[in-house]
Amino acid sequence: MGETPPFLADPGTTRESIMRATYLALGKHGYAGLTIQRIGEEFEKSKSLLYHHYDDKDELLLAFLQFMLEEHEASLSELDSVRGSKASARQPDPTDSGDDTEGPAERLDAVLGAMLATDLPDAHREFTAAMVELRAQAAHDERYREHFTRHDRFVADQVVTVVERGAEEGVFREGDADAVAQFLLSVLNGAMLQRVTSDAEATAEVRDHLDSYLRTTLLAGE
Amino acid sequence: MGETPPFLADPGTTRESIMRATYLALGKHGYAGLTIQRIGEEFEKSKSLLYHHYDDKDELLLAFLQFMLEEHEASLSELDSVRGSKASARQPDPTDSGDDTEGPAERLDAVLGAMLATDLPDAHREFTAAMVELRAQAAHDERYREHFTRHDRFVADQVVTVVERGAEEGVFREGDADAVAQFLLSVLNGAMLQRVTSDAEATAEVRDHLDSYLRTTLLAGE
Repeated sequence: MGETPPFLADPGTTRESIMRATYLALGKHGYAGLTIQRIGEEFEKSKSLLYHHYDDKDELLLAFLQFMLEEHEASLSELDSVRGSKASARQPDPTDSGDDTEGPAERLDAVLGAMLATDLPDAHREFTAAMVELRAQAAHDERYREHFTRHDRFVADQVVTVVERGAEEGVFREGDADAVAQFLLSVLNGAMLQRVTSDAEATAEVRDHLDSYLRTTLLAGE
Repeated sequence: MGETPPFLADPGTTRESIMRATYLALGKHGYAGLTIQRIGEEFEKSKSLLYHHYDDKDELLLAFLQFMLEEHEASLSELDSVRGSKASARQPDPTDSGDDTEGPAERLDAVLGAMLATDLPDAHREFTAAMVELRAQAAHDERYREHFTRHDRFVADQVVTVVERGAEEGVFREGDADAVAQFLLSVLNGAMLQRVTSDAEATAEVRDHLDSYLRTTLLAGE
């Protein structure tokens, strides 16, 4: 979830407008400071719509988390179909050499890189902080726990798919893709937690060492 | 912090009694449900002592976090001196072959194993859940952020010390001990976060894969 989602710039439906308002209010106030009232302040349509659809802030936030996960899934499916057709209309990456950009190693790099971006804009950092607060609700609220279980499984499944494809293609060693995925998921969750709860943030070091881990553990023939 | 701290069984001072009450109330009610009143319910001495020393629950919790970190540091220093004198009076581990138990690899294993214990008793799991809630406060509260910065640096320093000693002794490869420490810290924090906020917990898989990572990345001559 490293990029700004498209619904932010141009919400097409009432649901997207509500989600946009929630995103903005969450970044500004965090979970602890959030109220339906404050979400209403970011909402361009009638506030009564908010109260009509959602009973309390947690109900709205759980709908928001579900929405964000669906957006993320949709953006990946789109990316897959674009890559599948090899007709990318996306903005070209000037650092992209054009070599083997569809390979499993590059794909894994993209999955990990999005979550370990080192130059987070302030708005994104605030949003990440709020996501950590939301995740902590799962320590005592089963509804949040169900969401983050889905979220973790989604990320792990992405990694498993890439690692297994890499093994089939002989780019990665044969091995336990599930164990690799769980390990990487812990690295990602830990780095996210630290970056917003500690000044001892070391996302860049983690990213570098992750590359070295992937080379020695995962890449075939090295 | 894998073991039950000694102050729980036998608090020697008023401060330790307060910390014991905080530990118990935090496990029972979590951060969100915690009040000074509920800490008082676990406190064996006059409740007025609690109100006398601490203005609100966050002030008490920050003192508690500091206390727990000091306890942890003290238990490690003690362990070091016991190991140093090779006169361990601790309960013997029946799986311990007696070979090279003072070595860097075993020491690193002990540091990581304590934080990745797979068979957490319920009370310990509840306490870990509360610690994640406390950590999430750091997303918007500078005082918690300062604490978890100290906490992360403490854990990373432990790992750096072990890794550097291992390199000096030729057990570990020469390399960037700091990067290894930051990477492992992310794994630990991520596994802790997941185990209390997601049913997709995979501490056992993470532990196994961590061993494989350490063998391929860190151990010399393999």
